[in-house]
Amino acid sequence: MKKLINAPEHAVEEALAGMQCAHSHLLRVHFNPNFVARCDAPQPGKVAIISGGGSGHEPMHAGFVGAGMLDAACPGAFFTSPTPDQMVEAAKTVHGGAGVLFIVKNYTGDVMNFEIAAEFCAVEGIEVEHIVVNDDVAVQDSSFTAGRRGVGTAVLAEKLCGAAAEEGQSLAQIAELGRAVNGRGRSMGMALTSCIVPAVGRPTFAIGEAEMEIGVGIHGEPGRRRMSLRTADEITDILAETIFDDLPFRSGSRVIAMVNGMGGTPLVELYIVYRRLAELCDARGITIARNLIGNYITSLEMAGCSITLLDVDDELLRLWDAPVRTAAIHW
Amino acid sequence: MKKLINAPEHAVEEALAGMQCAHSHLLRVHFNPNFVARCDAPQPGKVAIISGGGSGHEPMHAGFVGAGMLDAACPGAFFTSPTPDQMVEAAKTVHGGAGVLFIVKNYTGDVMNFEIAAEFCAVEGIEVEHIVVNDDVAVQDSSFTAGRRGVGTAVLAEKLCGAAAEEGQSLAQIAELGRAVNGRGRSMGMALTSCIVPAVGRPTFAIGEAEMEIGVGIHGEPGRRRMSLRTADEITDILAETIFDDLPFRSGSRVIAMVNGMGGTPLVELYIVYRRLAELCDARGITIARNLIGNYITSLEMAGCSITLLDVDDELLRLWDAPVRTAAIHW
Repeated sequence: MKKLINAPEHAVEEALAGMQCAHSHLLRVHFNPNFVARCDAPQPGKVAIISGGGSGHEPMHAGFVGAGMLDAACPGAFFTSPTPDQMVEAAKTVHGGAGVLFIVKNYTGDVMNFEIAAEFCAVEGIEVEHIVVNDDVAVQDSSFTAGRRGVGTAVLAEKLCGAAAEEGQSLAQIAELGRAVNGRGRSMGMALTSCIVPAVGRPTFAIGEAEMEIGVGIHGEPGRRRMSLRTADEITDILAETIFDDLPFRSGSRVIAMVNGMGGTPLVELYIVYRRLAELCDARGITIARNLIGNYITSLEMAGCSITLLDVDDELLRLWDAPVRTAAIHW
Repeated sequence: MKKLINAPEHAVEEALAGMQCAHSHLLRVHFNPNFVARCDAPQPGKVAIISGGGSGHEPMHAGFVGAGMLDAACPGAFFTSPTPDQMVEAAKTVHGGAGVLFIVKNYTGDVMNFEIAAEFCAVEGIEVEHIVVNDDVAVQDSSFTAGRRGVGTAVLAEKLCGAAAEEGQSLAQIAELGRAVNGRGRSMGMALTSCIVPAVGRPTFAIGEAEMEIGVGIHGEPGRRRMSLRTADEITDILAETIFDDLPFRSGSRVIAMVNGMGGTPLVELYIVYRRLAELCDARGITIARNLIGNYITSLEMAGCSITLLDVDDELLRLWDAPVRTAAIHW
């Protein structure tokens, strides 16, 4: 295992300490329990948006903490759900009196712990709604999931709900928005290589030199098919066609398109994928209104990519374009 | 070789086509000869800033094209200098009548070709200055370099010279600024793994499972020492101490610090390195005034990192903070 770490058991905390040093103008890291909050939280009268999940997917979620996106992020151990105490302490720290929205990716541990946290928050007098993102078209159930897994649409939902919160929308409105975004977003990923979880020290799955995993999960969960390696265009076709078929993106649709690197994929390869995706959208009469290309929801050093398409209207584009100031997404 | 490409010989052009699709509001890609120009070039009366180099280091340089940074970038084949015709056509396209500055990383082919291009530009009546970045403290001469190699300080010089050009400084002023920045910046990198150049199909260098290369070049050139793997803190100490010793960063200095990923390194590891770098700076009384953490000057999918420190004053910080709108750096 070759990693720039000191000890596996300290890696998450040391990375959080690095984020604190680097981005003190944006965020404040709290330890024990661990969470990352906007440095200017709470924002009185604003709905607070909180997400979280296992570490190893950076910049998600702590890299999305800041004005216009998340008020707090709760990082678990690598590929492990955060615990309810993290979420409760985060909620107590950042809520501004207008309620809290939990944005949860659909993994059994995450869903359970965020639900428990919501109950504790209610006892504390903090109103909480939660939305579950389950946008991965690859498989119906998976290693850590009942139903579909939650992946790239979570990034987009955090931006859009964050913008709605910033302009003063109510908790009910923002929760409805988040559910609508989840309903209109679809993702699928693939891997060329496995990653190595630091505390485990060996690859999560075995894969041959001429193989790839289509539909892989962000923790290296099995996907749809183990296939022989194909070209970038063929891979893009497989991912995009599956997404197109799942949600009837119609001619005339506008989408936000994300081509996401899994952590170990050079940017040059993501642009090659994006080029093909743009051709496919064009052929179907679908307009890519906005895009994100880079590492947003990763799997440590895994080589591979995922595609997310979100069907948008003028209102979603307006929220997308609203100012955002986080370590990883800012405009 | 596992890569998201179609054919090695088309990868650079297809990635450029992807950039054109993705960022048409920022840049325009020209083919044959290949260069990437600001979509709003030329800017009359503004000095044009042009850089370039081999592909495989993305987002450098095409990801830095836009308002406040580069007017054009000339991408060569992977790890291969661009040719003079690319630079000449780029200069003819983007010059606004106030001259052109070439920012060149110190590799023999790059320096030679940019010098030839400058002569052709003179014939065309375009005034050209060039600066050579040679900030890598690892080795004096290297596989493709007489003298020190040019690495991370090029990223910072492009931002700072771009800001100076945007506010109307003259070609002579900006060239002097660029040389001053190069004189005040130092970098050093390391690799855990090799990368694979697409057309070659095998690793650039062999490295054992328990080894690392300290002082590696961005093309996988040998560095100072092949060592047994160390912790992130020990690695950071080696890189940072070498940089500190080379340029006498004094107590009371302020620096821009970049912790750069080589392409295959998870962000979480870069934050662990940054945390240690911040401790080392603090212990020496050096203030990190600004930072960049992420993939900026990469080596395809190489795992590893580099550190760049640039000694700054109020004027350089003012230029650093000036607005910039490129695909990879924007604020």
